[in-house]
Order: sequence, then C-alpha cells, then structure tokens
Amino acid sequence: MTGIWKLTLGASTEEGLLALTGARVDESLISESPCPLRQARISCEQVRERFVLRIPHDPAQRLYGLGLSFRGMALNHRVRHLRADHYGGSDNGRTHAPVPFYLCDRGYGVLIDTAENVSFYMGGAVRTDAVNPPLEMNRGRDADWRCDQDAEFVEASFIGTGVDVYLIAGETLKAITAQFVMLCGGGCLPPKWGLGFWHRVHIRHDEAAVLSELNQFREHGLHVDVLGLEPGWQSNSYPCSLEWDRERFPDPESFVSRLKASGTRVNLWENMYISRSSSLYKGVLPLCGSHQVWGGAVPDVTLPEAREMLLRHHERENAGVSGYKIDECDGYDEWLWPDHAAFPSGRSATALRNVYGARIERLLTDMFRARNERTYGLVRASNAGASSLPFCIYNDCYDFRQFLTGLATAGLCGVLWTPEVRNASSSEEWVRRFQLAALSPLMMLNAWFDGTKPWSFPEAEDAVADTIRLRRALLPYLYDAFHTYKAQGIPPFRPLVMDYTSEKRLADIVDQYLIGESLMAAPMTPGQSERDVVLPPGRWYDFYTGAELTSSAIRYACPLERAPLFVRGGGMIPLLQEDGSLFVRCFGERGERTLYDDDGVSWNFERGECAVLRMSFSRTDGRVQGRWSVESHGWASAYTHVEFA
Amino acid sequence: MTGIWKLTLGASTEEGLLALTGARVDESLISESPCPLRQARISCEQVRERFVLRIPHDPAQRLYGLGLSFRGMALNHRVRHLRADHYGGSDNGRTHAPVPFYLCDRGYGVLIDTAENVSFYMGGAVRTDAVNPPLEMNRGRDADWRCDQDAEFVEASFIGTGVDVYLIAGETLKAITAQFVMLCGGGCLPPKWGLGFWHRVHIRHDEAAVLSELNQFREHGLHVDVLGLEPGWQSNSYPCSLEWDRERFPDPESFVSRLKASGTRVNLWENMYISRSSSLYKGVLPLCGSHQVWGGAVPDVTLPEAREMLLRHHERENAGVSGYKIDECDGYDEWLWPDHAAFPSGRSATALRNVYGARIERLLTDMFRARNERTYGLVRASNAGASSLPFCIYNDCYDFRQFLTGLATAGLCGVLWTPEVRNASSSEEWVRRFQLAALSPLMMLNAWFDGTKPWSFPEAEDAVADTIRLRRALLPYLYDAFHTYKAQGIPPFRPLVMDYTSEKRLADIVDQYLIGESLMAAPMTPGQSERDVVLPPGRWYDFYTGAELTSSAIRYACPLERAPLFVRGGGMIPLLQEDGSLFVRCFGERGERTLYDDDGVSWNFERGECAVLRMSFSRTDGRVQGRWSVESHGWASAYTHVEFA
Repeated sequence: MTGIWKLTLGASTEEGLLALTGARVDESLISESPCPLRQARISCEQVRERFVLRIPHDPAQRLYGLGLSFRGMALNHRVRHLRADHYGGSDNGRTHAPVPFYLCDRGYGVLIDTAENVSFYMGGAVRTDAVNPPLEMNRGRDADWRCDQDAEFVEASFIGTGVDVYLIAGETLKAITAQFVMLCGGGCLPPKWGLGFWHRVHIRHDEAAVLSELNQFREHGLHVDVLGLEPGWQSNSYPCSLEWDRERFPDPESFVSRLKASGTRVNLWENMYISRSSSLYKGVLPLCGSHQVWGGAVPDVTLPEAREMLLRHHERENAGVSGYKIDECDGYDEWLWPDHAAFPSGRSATALRNVYGARIERLLTDMFRARNERTYGLVRASNAGASSLPFCIYNDCYDFRQFLTGLATAGLCGVLWTPEVRNASSSEEWVRRFQLAALSPLMMLNAWFDGTKPWSFPEAEDAVADTIRLRRALLPYLYDAFHTYKAQGIPPFRPLVMDYTSEKRLADIVDQYLIGESLMAAPMTPGQSERDVVLPPGRWYDFYTGAELTSSAIRYACPLERAPLFVRGGGMIPLLQEDGSLFVRCFGERGERTLYDDDGVSWNFERGECAVLRMSFSRTDGRVQGRWSVESHGWASAYTHVEFA
Repeated sequence: MTGIWKLTLGASTEEGLLALTGARVDESLISESPCPLRQARISCEQVRERFVLRIPHDPAQRLYGLGLSFRGMALNHRVRHLRADHYGGSDNGRTHAPVPFYLCDRGYGVLIDTAENVSFYMGGAVRTDAVNPPLEMNRGRDADWRCDQDAEFVEASFIGTGVDVYLIAGETLKAITAQFVMLCGGGCLPPKWGLGFWHRVHIRHDEAAVLSELNQFREHGLHVDVLGLEPGWQSNSYPCSLEWDRERFPDPESFVSRLKASGTRVNLWENMYISRSSSLYKGVLPLCGSHQVWGGAVPDVTLPEAREMLLRHHERENAGVSGYKIDECDGYDEWLWPDHAAFPSGRSATALRNVYGARIERLLTDMFRARNERTYGLVRASNAGASSLPFCIYNDCYDFRQFLTGLATAGLCGVLWTPEVRNASSSEEWVRRFQLAALSPLMMLNAWFDGTKPWSFPEAEDAVADTIRLRRALLPYLYDAFHTYKAQGIPPFRPLVMDYTSEKRLADIVDQYLIGESLMAAPMTPGQSERDVVLPPGRWYDFYTGAELTSSAIRYACPLERAPLFVRGGGMIPLLQEDGSLFVRCFGERGERTLYDDDGVSWNFERGECAVLRMSFSRTDGRVQGRWSVESHGWASAYTHVEFA
C-alpha cells in the first residue's frame, strides 16, 4: 500500500509546521479516498492546554524517526519532547531537527503538522483503561521482569487545540520517507561546486590572509571549491551587522569575484541576531521579538515584512558570495530567546524556535533562486518542510561515533547532516575524520578556531589529499544521488533499514549507511584497524579491490588511506577523472543505470534542462563490456568521454 | 533587613505549590508592611498560555537555589526548566527537588508558589527594550568578547494566569533559607534511631535470610539500627500490592516486633503504583490517573479521598514497621505518566508530578504522627513545602563527586539528600563512601542488588566499623542540629556560602560543607591521598588532632581511616560513648552551647517535652574546664554523665 492521507483533528487556529516553514506542499499527492490504515483511527482529546492524539500501535512493530539523533534510531518505549536545540549529549527530543514525523517498519509514517513542541510517547505509556493491558509482572519473583511496558498507542501531545496529521503508507522506510519529502516539496539539488571541498578560515582573517592561505593550498596541490568566512567578515558580530568589515575586506565584490574566477566560491557565516550598528537595525526592530539573542534583535521571521527586510539587506551585502552558514538558530536555552518571549506576529516563542532555521534557509534559497543561481550552505537547525532547501545541519559535538550516527540516520527525517573536520589528536584521527566528511553531504574543514590545514599532520598529507580526490571522483555519482533526492525524495545518505526494512538484523545499524543506489559506507573510527561490517541481502563487492564478499557479516581490515566502501552487485560507479572524462567502475556480472547531469549552477533544471546518460555493462570472461548514450534535454552533458572497467 | 512578604500577581484559579504539598504555612511570619525590597517591583504579563514574571536583578549579585543540583551552585545566566525528574547528568532543572525558590547573596530569596513547571531565566535573558542594555561586543575583534549577556531581570514563566510570590529578606543565605523553611512549617526532627546505621537487604530476602544476615552483622560486632526491605516484601511489585508476601514473611507483625525488640527498626520499599492484585486496587481505581506507571494505577494524591484510602491501606499493612522508602516518584519520563495524563482532580499531570513525592511523604508522616511515633524515610522526589517531613532524597547516579555536591548544597533549598553506599571498585572507595554517608543526614548501605556487607572488603572492615562508630558518637550533635532545623529552619547540612555569604572565596565551594553549628566536613574523594581545604573566617581546628589550622586555605592529608572534619573555634562536640555517657571535645579557648535532647521516638517534643543541656568550657594552661547543667521540660535527659576534654 502506498499513498498519503490527511486528517484534520480538533480545531486549530494556528498555522501548521509546513505552513510556517513555508513548504510548498504538494497537495496532489494527498489521496482523497478514505485512509485504509488502522492508524487512521486516531483518537484525540483536549486535556487542559494540551491537545492529545492517540495513534493505534502494535508493540511488535519498530518505530523510527522524530528528528536528528546521534545515539541510535530505535524509538519503541522512548519519550521525546521535540524542541529545536543544540544536541546536548542525549537523544531526548532536543535536537537540531525536531521533525514531528515518525516511521514504522510495518509500512507507514505519521507527521503531526504543528510547529509547537510535541511530546511523543512511543508505545510505552499504558492507559489505565487499556483494552489489552500488559500482563502484570512481579520484580520480586519473576526473572523476566522488565521495565518497559507495552502500550496499544503511540501518544503525542502539544499545547494547542487541533492539528493536521499526514499518514503516509509505503512498503519500506525509504518509500515512506520519499513520499514525506515529496509532500514537503521534494529534496534539494546542490550546485556541483557544493559537492567539492570546503575550507573555513580563521575568524580574524582579512583579504590578504585569505589569499595567502589559498596560495598555500595551491602549493600543496589542493583546490578549495568553497571558502568560508567566519564572523570576522562583518563590521560587527556577534551581534551581527550582516555588513562587510571594510577594513578587512575593502572591496568585497572584487575579492569575491576574483576568487570565483579562480574556481573558489565564498560562503559567509552569520546568525540572524541584529546589531544596533547595522543599517538594518532601526527598520527591523519593530518586527523583532521581546528579547535579544547574543545581544542582537531577533526578527520575527514568520512575518513577510521582516523577511522582506532581511532579504533586501542580504541582497545589498551579498557581494557575489554563493551561500551562507546560518549559525545558532538552535540553542542552547541560555543562548536563545526564552519560551515566554513575545513576537509581533503573536506566534509562540516555541513555534518560532522550531521554524527559525528553516525560514532563513528558505529566505536565502529564494534570494539565489531569483538570480537563477544555486546555493548550498550550512544551518544549525532545520525541520520538516525544509527538505527542498540546500542546507546541511552541522554541530559542535565532535564525537566521532555520534557524528557517524547522525550522518547514517539523518535521512530518516529528510534532513542532511555533515560531520565537519576541525582538529584531531593524531594523524590517524585526522585521516578518519576527512574520510567521514568525504562520504557525507558536505565535505568541510572548519579551521575557524584551530587554523588547521589538510596538511596539519604532515605524515597524513597524502592520505588526506587522496580523500579529497576520492570526493571529487565521486561527484557525478553524488550529484545523481541528489537528483534522485530532488525528484523522488529518496535521501542520498540513509541507514540500511530504510532500504531493507524487513531485515531484522539491519534494524539497528547506525555505523554503516547507504549512499545513492549502489554504495554502502562503513567508516573506520579512530583507533580501529578493522571492524565488523554487515552486508545487506544481494551481492556486494569491495569498492577498492572489486572482490566479492561472500558472507553476510564480515570482519573488515583496511589501510589508513582507505575508507571502507562497498558496492551492490550490478552497481556502476562513474568516477570523474582529472581530464573531465568518466571512468565507470562496474561490479558484478551485468548492470545498468542512468546518470543525471545538468549545468550544475543554475535553476534551469527546473525547466527540464538536463542530460541523462544511460549506461549498461556486462562481463564476459572477466572483461567488462560497457555501453552508454546521452539523452539531452536542452543541455549537453559535460561528460563526453566514458570508459568502463 | 529580615522578613517575609507575600505578593499576589495576576489571578490564578489553581492552588499553589505549598497548598498542593499540604504545607502548614506559617502565616504569622508574613509581614503586613509594604515590602521594602527592590525585588518587590515585579512586573508580570500574560504571553499566550504563559504567566511571566520579571524580577529586578543586578548582574553583580550571585544567584543560588532552584532545587537539588549535583554539578554546582552558581545560577547566574543559567536557564532552569524546573520539573520533578530523576537527575539525568546535568543540572538543567530536571531534578528530584524542583523547588521554585532562588536566593541572592545580596540579602533576599524569591519563592514562586506554583506547582506547575517553572522556567527560570537567571539574569541572562536581555530584553530588547532594556533600559540599560549590555554594551555591544564584537567577537571578530574584541579579545574580551563573551557569550553571556547581563540582563536587568530574572524572568520566570509557567503555564498559568497568576501566582503568589514570597519575598524573603535576610542577611545571609542561611537566614533566608531558615525563614523559607519556617514559612513552610519548619524543618524535621528524625527519631534518634534514624540517625544510626541503615542496611537494606537483597530484593529476594525472606524472613530467614534477613535474620541470618542480621546474625552475620552481630558476628562482625555491628548493629543495624534500621533494616530496609526492598520490593520483595510485597506479594506483588512492581506494580505494588503494598501487601506483605506471606510466603516470605508468614507473620510480619511478629517478625517486625522481634527485630524492634533487638533494636532494629524496619523500613519498607514501595512505589505508589497499585497492582491489580492489591485489595486496594478496586477502590482506588476511580481516583487514579488516565495512565499506568510501572503497570500500576496512579492514585491522584491531591484528592483527600485517595489519600484516605492509601492511609487506611498502609495502616492495615504496616505490621509495626517504622518507615518507608518512596521510590520512583521522580521519573524518568519513560517511567512516569505522560504530561498529558488526566487526573480525576482535574489538576495537570505536571503539577501532580511536582508534588507526588511530597504528598506521600506527608501522608505517611501523618500516619505515624497519629500513633505518636516518629518516622524517618527515603524519597526520590520532594519539593518546597516538605521540609518538615522526615525524608531524605536519594538517587541512582552514584558518582562520588556528584553525591558530594548534592550533599553539600541540598540545604539551600530546604531538602535533605543522602549518598547511599552500594558497592565499590576498591577498598579505598568503599571506605570513602561509608565516610561520606556517615557525614550525611542518613547513613545507609543499600545492598538490594549487590548483596554487599560492611565487611565486603575484608581489609577495610576496621575502617568501615570505625566510620559507623563515628556516626554513633556524633548522634547527640546531629540530633541537636536537626532540632535547630526543626525549630529555626537552619539546615543541618549546608554549603559554606550559606553561613559566610559575604566571603567571595567560599561562594562556589561544593566539596566541603557545614554540619550543625560547629563542624565542617571536607570528604576525601576516592583516589585522593590529600586535598585542598578552604577554611572560613575565624579559628578552625582539626577534629582528630585538635591542632589549630592557621591558614585560610590548606593542603590536607589524612589516612584512609579518617574523614576530614574541622571544628570552629569555641566548638564543643558532644560524643556519645558506648556506656551512654557524653564525652565533649572542646576546641579553642572557651565556648558554650546548648544540647537539645528528648525521648527520640515520640512527638511529645511538640508539646515541649525535652531536656536542654547547657555546657561551657574554658581552657587554662592547656587544661579544659567544663561545666554543664540540665534544664528538664517534662523529660529527663538520657545524658547523665558528661566529661570534657
């Protein structure tokens, strides 16, 4: 069963989450037939200020979702109080992406479309009037006594009087999430340059320091695709003027355009808390909340007038840069407005908090879109409704395993997450961190504080350079995977359980993940010389050696220079060569695929301007025979030479 | 300036926290004159569902309080979302004692008398319309840029429409807290046996196993003053029948009375979530909440009918035991009712949660009071209004430093906290844990899971026995300190800053604490062979050697057998000897004190039945000359022989 059903429960006077994040909801996907899912028998009631939903639940089913997490995926019996916040070390609902959407391995997902903080009780809150209450146990006697009780319902509640609920049916978690993403306007397609190598310079760098640093990269044979400027580019931050510091950057337009000419885009750090020194301040102040953040005024971004003012200001100060890093829209509480802050729109401080990041993502995306330029950026908080906006979530936690878990599982809720490289305590960790970043939606060295360079560990310079090369080679593959995200809603990075939902042994794997249709990563954690790798059903091959792996669970060793990567049987991995040609590595006996391509910078693809390469291969007596053709739709592919092996 | 003022703000239809915890508020302490404190200029407003208070604040003052914490005391700039919960590793407001009371080192305290979850913003939430906003800094340029902003207000908010606020003026934090405690009905006076040595046996022990274990204690020369039975004493737990398991304990009355005759009281574990197997279930069910906890029904303890039923049931099943351990009234969320649970009283699930522990404390205390028996027990959650109830908070965290911090600082908010001993990874840790427990409100070995005994580390048996002996010897001193708590509200265990509020160097000390009027403990943490000790103003002496410490900060080394203890100059520490006599150790040149005494078991002291020993000493040529007399008020002191040294 596949489809989306919308139920309206109670009577709400507030806009929902999708409306507040500005999502272009694709109403055509909503089924008009009665919802056949058992879960559609949601009951609701008002308990004092809280609107309460009870959704039928079978304890045998496994639950996933509810936003970005860093410790694991399993949700059964857990409680999550969703709320936009910096991740504070436990998955309790305070998260960079408090997406009120959960999925079940029995074929459905549920989106509670409110911007308020929702508390979810995932099948552990047993009602006193339960029809089939769990059997009573006795801890004093029963050896199999356990803490968790099984409830017949998932319950959710929030301060409000009603809400729209979307029920989404699909065979796998992948199919469910894909529909959720398409409902919210589809996935995003970053520009090609965005999938290259990013480097953020020290907070106090001026123009000369930036140019000198880029020269050093050149001397080391490395190219920076995106250069990030941290707070110091502004005349004041924090709080932010959102205006160039003309001492450090006397002529930003010229500076940015020279960098662009040499193949380096500029990305600007900002947080949206406005300094009194900004020319924006006086005008925007009446549209700001009752409380400052970081000493700056907080525009009510749910007001079109406030957004318009921010948009005009960004246009004026843009100077040709290609994107932004939207910092600190997540928390912690000490560093955000209080829950009782008043905003001129009359909306609640908690709802504002849950949509703040997403709203700014949309504002900036639309600015670039109006110029027919694509953008790709970073954000510290997002939510449902923002999947079509080309921003990756990042954070400060820096724990390797938790970075890996976030990367592996973010796809479940339709957001992108990236583990930035900052520093390391050993050259081994340095390399492993670059490898993790290379196999993520955005590969970045963030040296704003430490001033690190890829060659900061000289003995690891080659391995790091190899990793950056791997990233570049994977561009056509990743770009195609993002197009699938955009067009079909399938997250380019996702946990195994999304594709193989019925395989119980894969249900909790959070240290491996799928990339696109054919690749699986199983990154090494610092300190590991080998690790366990679980292989999903079907045939799988070692990306480096081409050897087939014949067991469903293996012990895998690889040298420091390599990030464990595996390819599905029949997979074709197009690798971009230095000369611009494609070298397609083929795994297994035969296969076929398409490879999406377009100009990589403009929004012309929305008018259908693209090229599709169709390729196939078969292997005879160990020799690969490849075929390919191009279908051009108003754009000729850059890939004119293709080899197979 | 000293006094208590009550302000009524907004219009609330709900009972306050003190009313819901059943506190006997001493209205006579409330001043009828206009409050002279600047803080009385509280402004308030309704922002959507939230009632918001703004209390004038000077960033130069230091803030304390807001319930039990385990990491530190300082509150400036912090945010606390108060809510009864098991401590989860950070002081964020989820605490066993979410007391909405904070103190300032400039002479006042503020109690927000609501049972709802209150969010406190402790001087870091700057308003956009601030009269004196902090100067703008620039992180990109200023070396002294900092995260925290200074606000002119402490702000607090909760879901509601109004509240009573109590402002309490006093010169020191001690004076402020003492008035807060007296307002709430005073401190508690435990029975003397409660200040002895407690031991909890394994969850599955039956009568024979208990008796055999007590025999082992005798063989080791140790006496158990209170023996705790864990869940297995009940016919079902969890959920709880609150009825004896007649297989394990065929004749509980006789069992308990034999133990009592041999000087051992019995304490029963329970949580108040009712099993279907209990004779209580059917009757109480209509008075229970919408959701189960641990598989049991949750009585709405704010309803007198429900309390009456619980009281009658406890009376029936009491069997002569002397107290209870009220477990799991704190959380975590997974193990409590949801925030949207409905209760027959119509009160909110969150308010119920914040008062549940305190309400049960009161119910059980009143039961014993009606029999003219005192009780002393354990509870996992308490709140304002419960200071007169003889229960110590405990928890599962087991981190030594955090246990110490909780013990040192709990007095600030008028609750008692005890660090139980369970197990250890070395004999050194074993001894240090016993020492910490010995210098706490309740000294307990909790072997419910591990089956440990004081002699579990044979090489440390003597040191542990010495520690238990020290505890016994300190009984008269501790008992007097508790009487001061009861009569004057001064917590018997408290951080240095409470007494020495103007000494900045003591403002953050959380690993030392005062006990009563004359003692200061500075416990050693496992792994330490020596430690830093800060000495407050005045003369201080080593408890063991009598040597005067001549510096205000020392490096202190002591053997494993000793827990660092210091005595204020002029201090007289009455030590109980095996033969029942008092041996009073005197420190400094001269001093005087009173020593409170009564029968130690009944509530007759409330009618004034007690004895007061007046003692003084002077030292001439190194020889101590002591004097003492007894004032009897309907009761003759047990101390008939007193020596001084």
